[in-house]
Amino acid sequence: MAGPKVRLHVDQPLGAGQAVAVPEGAANYLFAVMRLGPGAGVFLFNGRDGEWLAEVAEAGKRRGVLVCREQTRVQEAPPDLWLLFSPVKKERTAFIVEKAVELGVARILPVSTRRTNAERLREDKARAHATEAAEQCGATYVPEVADLQPLDRLLASWPEGRRLYWADEARAGADAAWPGARGEPAAILIGPEGGFTPEERARLDGLPFVTPVALGPRILRAETAALAALTLWQARFGDWR
Amino acid sequence: MAGPKVRLHVDQPLGAGQAVAVPEGAANYLFAVMRLGPGAGVFLFNGRDGEWLAEVAEAGKRRGVLVCREQTRVQEAPPDLWLLFSPVKKERTAFIVEKAVELGVARILPVSTRRTNAERLREDKARAHATEAAEQCGATYVPEVADLQPLDRLLASWPEGRRLYWADEARAGADAAWPGARGEPAAILIGPEGGFTPEERARLDGLPFVTPVALGPRILRAETAALAALTLWQARFGDWR
Repeated sequence: MAGPKVRLHVDQPLGAGQAVAVPEGAANYLFAVMRLGPGAGVFLFNGRDGEWLAEVAEAGKRRGVLVCREQTRVQEAPPDLWLLFSPVKKERTAFIVEKAVELGVARILPVSTRRTNAERLREDKARAHATEAAEQCGATYVPEVADLQPLDRLLASWPEGRRLYWADEARAGADAAWPGARGEPAAILIGPEGGFTPEERARLDGLPFVTPVALGPRILRAETAALAALTLWQARFGDWR
Repeated sequence: MAGPKVRLHVDQPLGAGQAVAVPEGAANYLFAVMRLGPGAGVFLFNGRDGEWLAEVAEAGKRRGVLVCREQTRVQEAPPDLWLLFSPVKKERTAFIVEKAVELGVARILPVSTRRTNAERLREDKARAHATEAAEQCGATYVPEVADLQPLDRLLASWPEGRRLYWADEARAGADAAWPGARGEPAAILIGPEGGFTPEERARLDGLPFVTPVALGPRILRAETAALAALTLWQARFGDWR
């Protein structure tokens, strides 16, 4: 059994000798597209039991069975970082979700603001993108993608002790200080393409848990700001060392 | 003349009272799409004379004339950072170019390696993406996009004193140290999707100007690695403060 190329997220328990039914929809990918037959290896993870090397026991057109052989990675926890972003155009939203998973977050929270253009977010697609990204990047968990919710409501019930870094485009060119500490729960807020309204800005400025941060002298698009902020937080306080 | 929304890169000289012929292809955008008429304002930059507020003097179907009124930004130089990357799929290559301009680079150098899949790079499209990104992000310059060239050849004639950071995916999880200094000429190298061959890796490891760097514990796609590396360099040594 040579090193498997396929890495699959499943919901079922994983453990030595554990049989795992191939999730609906994955049989075609595993057995037709990737042409895996009995004895072939697949990596599995479920967000609880680490990563397991499993072997194809049965391969059918619409179903199949995998059997866990050995644990190849212990369960890891994502860094305790949330990403709050206002949905943008479809491809760029997909991009934000994919990159957030690769760079490392615990939760992705789409928020609507006064100037959020994307009225509707396809949460199912965003979740599928998050799962694919986790399968691809080697994470042993899939970050949660929450339903779209008003930013106001989220701020009103903000958890104590979690710092919210606000990537404020109006501070372009300001000093790039990032106060904070390793192990501190944190979140990053990226505004809508048109920016926050003066009322929203005033509210954010007045909240004790909000820390504005600057991301260089140029005007970054929403998805660029999200990636840059996640990168800087990871390198300073996250699991990048 | 209210604050113009249009920002245009031109090749012609800019200065007080200077008349500027609207570049071919831009007349339709300015006068039909954006519906600008005589007296309307446009920001212009050419990479040499800073940014100028110009006024529409003549608006035609295929041509037009703008007249420079006042300088609104002095000419800035990009940080002395190059990005070397191996072209990936079309949309992801476009993304790398766009984001590199936003995050800030002086030159973008597409390089071919043994495992580079994209045989042909549309340099004209990459240059158009770079120009659009510069117009959008407020830069007063458009980073150069070089023609695709073999990485080997570029390394053989590498300029003295320029450090090359190699974002090495095989070092995932290693310490995230970035030696270097502010003001030092630098470059970032992102490998192809399939990684470098053992021979290429050995060559890179043996070059005195190459500094390997790690980008966290997960496996980043090429475009994610490019953005993360540019962000970290900018925050440490670039113009992000």
